[in-house]
Amino acid sequence: MEKIAYPQGILQYIPFFYVIWSDDLVSASETNVVQNAIQKDDSLNKDEKEQLKSWLHTDNPPAENVFKNWKYVISSSNVKLIESVNYPLATFSQKVASAHLVSYPFNNHLKDIEINLGIQPNHYNHLFNVAVEHHGISNLYDSTLIDAILNGDHAETINQFRTILNEPIFNWGIHRNKDAFREIVLKQIKNLALKGYGAMAYPEAYGGTNNMEGYSKIFEQMMYVDGSMAIKFGVQFGLFGGSIQKLGSKEQHDKYLKRAGTAELLGCFAMTETGHGSNVRGIKTTATYDNKTDSIVMHTPGKNDNKEYIGNALHSKIASVFAQLIVNGKNEGVHAILVPLRDDKHKILPGITIEDNGYKLGLNGVDNGKIWFNQVQVPRANLLNNFGTITENGTYYSEIKNPNKRFFTMLGTLVGGRICVARAGLGGAKMGLAIAIKHALKRRQFNDNKKIQEDLLMDYPTHQLRLIPLVASAYIYHITLDKMMSVYCDETQPDKRKVETQVAGLKSVITWYANNTLQECREACGGKGYLIENRIADLKGDVDIFTTFEGDNNVLLQLAAKGVLSDFKAEFNSAGFSSVLKLLSQQLSDKLATVNPLYANKVDKDHLYNPKFHKHAFEYRTRRLTYTLAMRIRDYIKKGVPSYQAFLKVQTHLIALGKAYSIELAYSTFTDFTDTINSQEHKELFQKLATLYALFEIRKDASWYLEQGYIGSSKSKALRQRVERLCTELRPHIHELIDGFGIPEHCLTAPIAN
Amino acid sequence: MEKIAYPQGILQYIPFFYVIWSDDLVSASETNVVQNAIQKDDSLNKDEKEQLKSWLHTDNPPAENVFKNWKYVISSSNVKLIESVNYPLATFSQKVASAHLVSYPFNNHLKDIEINLGIQPNHYNHLFNVAVEHHGISNLYDSTLIDAILNGDHAETINQFRTILNEPIFNWGIHRNKDAFREIVLKQIKNLALKGYGAMAYPEAYGGTNNMEGYSKIFEQMMYVDGSMAIKFGVQFGLFGGSIQKLGSKEQHDKYLKRAGTAELLGCFAMTETGHGSNVRGIKTTATYDNKTDSIVMHTPGKNDNKEYIGNALHSKIASVFAQLIVNGKNEGVHAILVPLRDDKHKILPGITIEDNGYKLGLNGVDNGKIWFNQVQVPRANLLNNFGTITENGTYYSEIKNPNKRFFTMLGTLVGGRICVARAGLGGAKMGLAIAIKHALKRRQFNDNKKIQEDLLMDYPTHQLRLIPLVASAYIYHITLDKMMSVYCDETQPDKRKVETQVAGLKSVITWYANNTLQECREACGGKGYLIENRIADLKGDVDIFTTFEGDNNVLLQLAAKGVLSDFKAEFNSAGFSSVLKLLSQQLSDKLATVNPLYANKVDKDHLYNPKFHKHAFEYRTRRLTYTLAMRIRDYIKKGVPSYQAFLKVQTHLIALGKAYSIELAYSTFTDFTDTINSQEHKELFQKLATLYALFEIRKDASWYLEQGYIGSSKSKALRQRVERLCTELRPHIHELIDGFGIPEHCLTAPIAN
Repeated sequence: MEKIAYPQGILQYIPFFYVIWSDDLVSASETNVVQNAIQKDDSLNKDEKEQLKSWLHTDNPPAENVFKNWKYVISSSNVKLIESVNYPLATFSQKVASAHLVSYPFNNHLKDIEINLGIQPNHYNHLFNVAVEHHGISNLYDSTLIDAILNGDHAETINQFRTILNEPIFNWGIHRNKDAFREIVLKQIKNLALKGYGAMAYPEAYGGTNNMEGYSKIFEQMMYVDGSMAIKFGVQFGLFGGSIQKLGSKEQHDKYLKRAGTAELLGCFAMTETGHGSNVRGIKTTATYDNKTDSIVMHTPGKNDNKEYIGNALHSKIASVFAQLIVNGKNEGVHAILVPLRDDKHKILPGITIEDNGYKLGLNGVDNGKIWFNQVQVPRANLLNNFGTITENGTYYSEIKNPNKRFFTMLGTLVGGRICVARAGLGGAKMGLAIAIKHALKRRQFNDNKKIQEDLLMDYPTHQLRLIPLVASAYIYHITLDKMMSVYCDETQPDKRKVETQVAGLKSVITWYANNTLQECREACGGKGYLIENRIADLKGDVDIFTTFEGDNNVLLQLAAKGVLSDFKAEFNSAGFSSVLKLLSQQLSDKLATVNPLYANKVDKDHLYNPKFHKHAFEYRTRRLTYTLAMRIRDYIKKGVPSYQAFLKVQTHLIALGKAYSIELAYSTFTDFTDTINSQEHKELFQKLATLYALFEIRKDASWYLEQGYIGSSKSKALRQRVERLCTELRPHIHELIDGFGIPEHCLTAPIAN
Repeated sequence: MEKIAYPQGILQYIPFFYVIWSDDLVSASETNVVQNAIQKDDSLNKDEKEQLKSWLHTDNPPAENVFKNWKYVISSSNVKLIESVNYPLATFSQKVASAHLVSYPFNNHLKDIEINLGIQPNHYNHLFNVAVEHHGISNLYDSTLIDAILNGDHAETINQFRTILNEPIFNWGIHRNKDAFREIVLKQIKNLALKGYGAMAYPEAYGGTNNMEGYSKIFEQMMYVDGSMAIKFGVQFGLFGGSIQKLGSKEQHDKYLKRAGTAELLGCFAMTETGHGSNVRGIKTTATYDNKTDSIVMHTPGKNDNKEYIGNALHSKIASVFAQLIVNGKNEGVHAILVPLRDDKHKILPGITIEDNGYKLGLNGVDNGKIWFNQVQVPRANLLNNFGTITENGTYYSEIKNPNKRFFTMLGTLVGGRICVARAGLGGAKMGLAIAIKHALKRRQFNDNKKIQEDLLMDYPTHQLRLIPLVASAYIYHITLDKMMSVYCDETQPDKRKVETQVAGLKSVITWYANNTLQECREACGGKGYLIENRIADLKGDVDIFTTFEGDNNVLLQLAAKGVLSDFKAEFNSAGFSSVLKLLSQQLSDKLATVNPLYANKVDKDHLYNPKFHKHAFEYRTRRLTYTLAMRIRDYIKKGVPSYQAFLKVQTHLIALGKAYSIELAYSTFTDFTDTINSQEHKELFQKLATLYALFEIRKDASWYLEQGYIGSSKSKALRQRVERLCTELRPHIHELIDGFGIPEHCLTAPIAN
């Protein structure tokens, strides 16, 4: 081959040009970056600048022999590529230039290209045919700082809690026998209660610190120990204790709440029935007020009307039972009544039957059971009567006159639990990602026969594409759930309908995300991921049920969509649609501007990475789906289709809207947050995560965006390429991002993660 | 409201017009059906025909008051809708017409509309506001006949086997302790062996019937009992016995095969190593021939070089060990050597260490373990020497001179196992679908407050969309796997490279399908699906590993893609790419015709349901992906990127191609098969399943088809609507389709399925 000698100024650019062309980094905005750097670079003379710029025409790429010459220049330099320096390619280029004559200064213009194009060693280390000093891990970012950003105001509480999880009682183990497992979990939650964590969200008078936000963050950490512990904890303190806190009166708080928070009084939350899972309003258990004895009689009328899947059922002394309250022959709707289940010796009380639900796919440390009531009499005072009561003279009284509104007010107060379920799912996903990625940063498979070392799993593009967008999503959902809890806890905003609806959608999207993530993690670890000792298997089993408990995801998404349709003015959880229909007529103007074809085909990096584009795309999708949905429903109604049936016919449309709205909400919540990060470096990292999340989600719905003409073919393809590219850009920082989750080392017991 | 009286001829059409307009059945090809019927209907006079036709203009729909009048006519007729009659809408119409005057004859033209538009009672029973006699289940098709179609020539063998599964030893149970569980499973497979099933695929001389096709069908049925039983059976008779059958000589068959088939000799298949899962060629265990003692010395050289995940490891007396065979200092590549593990008293032999792999996410009835060899000496005769041997004078000899070819020939003979894994996954999916759908045909949730009964889960459009396409896929994959096994067993075709590559792709697609299906089924059953007693949980755990064992799906799809790239001329399983690259240059002509814009926007039913469209779409995708992939690789190679790295850069593209090819193959295999079905009625049912499969799969890749301009926006939307529509059309027959799987009643123990 004929060798062409290059002047030193050009020489230093050769590695960059070689990478840029080999790696297809030649879109308009990218060549622009290179052009600017060249223009400003005073180490180049005019001819050199012209020469370099002539190699930047995408429609006229450098000839094949020019390429080969570049390659020869690089490999013949005998310079070693060191990945651990701050700017590996600029440093390498400096050395290549120096190797051919005298020592040459470090060129900041090259550094700028390296940063602005996001060029990473793993993009080019294989291209050069030179010795490479591999470093799978960068230290550009600080995982401790990332963790602090995620913890926010609750860092101290969380860190203290993490230390506690190092106590032997919280050691993870394999538990196959449910009864033995449940004893262990019971001890764990009693231990946490004694340390004050059970009552955390209760008022100070009852041993708490009124800290619901902290509680939900602690709850996520519990997943690092064991899913059963987290759920049992949630049942005792969140659901059972929470029902007393939210639905009970001052007297009832005084009588029960402190003992619930210390786990002295174990209780359950008996809502779901065998015949009625998702349809709470249709439950059949009756609570009939008896004038003569001034008591309430609890009864299970039919074969499938027993309470089912009730957590803590085998350990509890008492239950908050949801039942149709009948006073003087009138059904006043669903209310909660405290019903003692067992005596001091843990013997079941007369009229009550409890059965173990048996083995489950996961959460076998939680004692779920079925409960039947056969004419069980409890005092009138046991009605949790914050929203409705039976007066001394035996009549029903509530300040909320509308029974519908009363029902949803009661249920709405329990929405905090839904945020916690999503948080637990998120914790499981983070744990799975930490294990799978730590494994992929050590495990090598296959190789280029010429190399000595096989490639790290994490360096496979497929592996990056499988896992890195999921890491980005974990960050987005973490911040989103923080925000939801903070809004939910904001007492200055008494109308919770909007946040309730938002949580319904987010719970669905996040628990599905958690399941998909754990499945990817399992598969990404191959057979190793299948072993219980490596933790992912248990997490998968535990998190699985999150998609259908505390509200079935498909049902919740429909609620969320109805909320969007009615601009959040419809009752939460409503099965009726009249309020929605009323609002539809006001909303049917199509506010959507037509999409400019130029916009639909804009593919440069600046545009694709711009949050304005992402927000616009998400908003467009939500609005468009809302509008078309409203139109379809109105058409059906016009044709005389009953509204219930009309909503049935658009069920899949409702679900699409519910998801779209939740994604939009998560993204905008996250980007609002990133603006508040002080460290510029870390702010940019978070922004990159947001970009990956946005493009990944838009890609998922690419067929819809294409159908609408919102994006054109070339933009759709560019989005796909950008997602892959962003994954490789985040690859060097993936270990910091995983450590940023702050999962305590003592919880990361999986052998493959060590 | 002003009532308009209609003449009787028109009256009988009113229910049809009402349904057609309410349900948006007004595309060109559909109005065509109605127009033709009207034209041919002699019971109508000219004016009536004109009147009816005037109501068929999509651009000028009937006025609102016309609609209301239709509705009034229907509801005021007081006719009851009976869903169980053969043509419910035509019958209803006849009665409506009769109700207004004298008895009116049944109109065959209406029947034709009902059939040709695929109108089902669940499309309209809610529209009429009349009494409905509900029937969730049709009996238009015969599940016994469907089962017979699926069983083909093997019906007798299969039905016999199903009867055997009723013996108490095959009763399903909850097993939490792995050791006890394994004893049960061991007894089960010994029992099956004594009945002759173990040796089924072996030659008659060794107790078999040479029936590999039957074997694979039986294997699927085993999943209905328990996943662990199926896998342990596969390890003993398929992998261990199979390795002797395929890799061993006549003498070795005589010595071992009969005893393997009766389970008298338990053995394992020791290929995978801790350090090397997917990369079999890179395994480290050595088998060094020692001239002095005329023996082979087995050794585990390093810390991670032990055999891992070896099924049957705790029960076995002997193992087929895959190791690097070194003869006279030369590595002859990977060979299998029989290594005794334990003595008659089940004591582990010197130099051998075996450890239990411990608890797993599923398959805990299979005793997977790790095995180490410390200089273990075995006779030279223990080398399975069908493809390569060590002669008496201590030199290596093989008829296959090329070591690469030798390796892939040996591995290729084991491909049958991959078909069986896909079959087992399919069996699991069928079982999950049967349980979830039987549950959905009984369980009711929510309701229209005016109705007494709540809706069946199966009548929710979301539920239909979740489950029915998965049922269709089960049919497609069943037939496809039958065909693959038949080609694999065809001894007249000695070159198995093509079928091996096809199986690599199909195994991936089908095992992922199985996992997704079981996840949908679990969620579709809510909390009930989470209980072990309802079986889906165990199936999920068992089937999960199928995606990464017998070849990791992502790796297999890349192999499949390389096969397509090289027109199946590359070596199966090859990590090198030279043969692919050689072929690329011959393949780079783009054979694809440009897509006609008219074609890209054809949305009428006839076109969308036409197999020619489906085949063309699948073929287009495969070809296009092949072409663009080849171009990308060539570009990288031209730029000097090493071929190994070039393939790495296109990894996600390879996976897309591998999937696309597999889907195309499955669809065309299935449609070839449907042509052979005798019963016209059932042939049409199978064709409808094929249509749903095709549209469902095309929709999954809609963004790609849109990007390519292969489909336009309106076609993409029409496809989505057609998928939903096909689900409702299949809804009345879903019970027959599920029963057509032929899962024995004694295996369907899930309480929710009864």
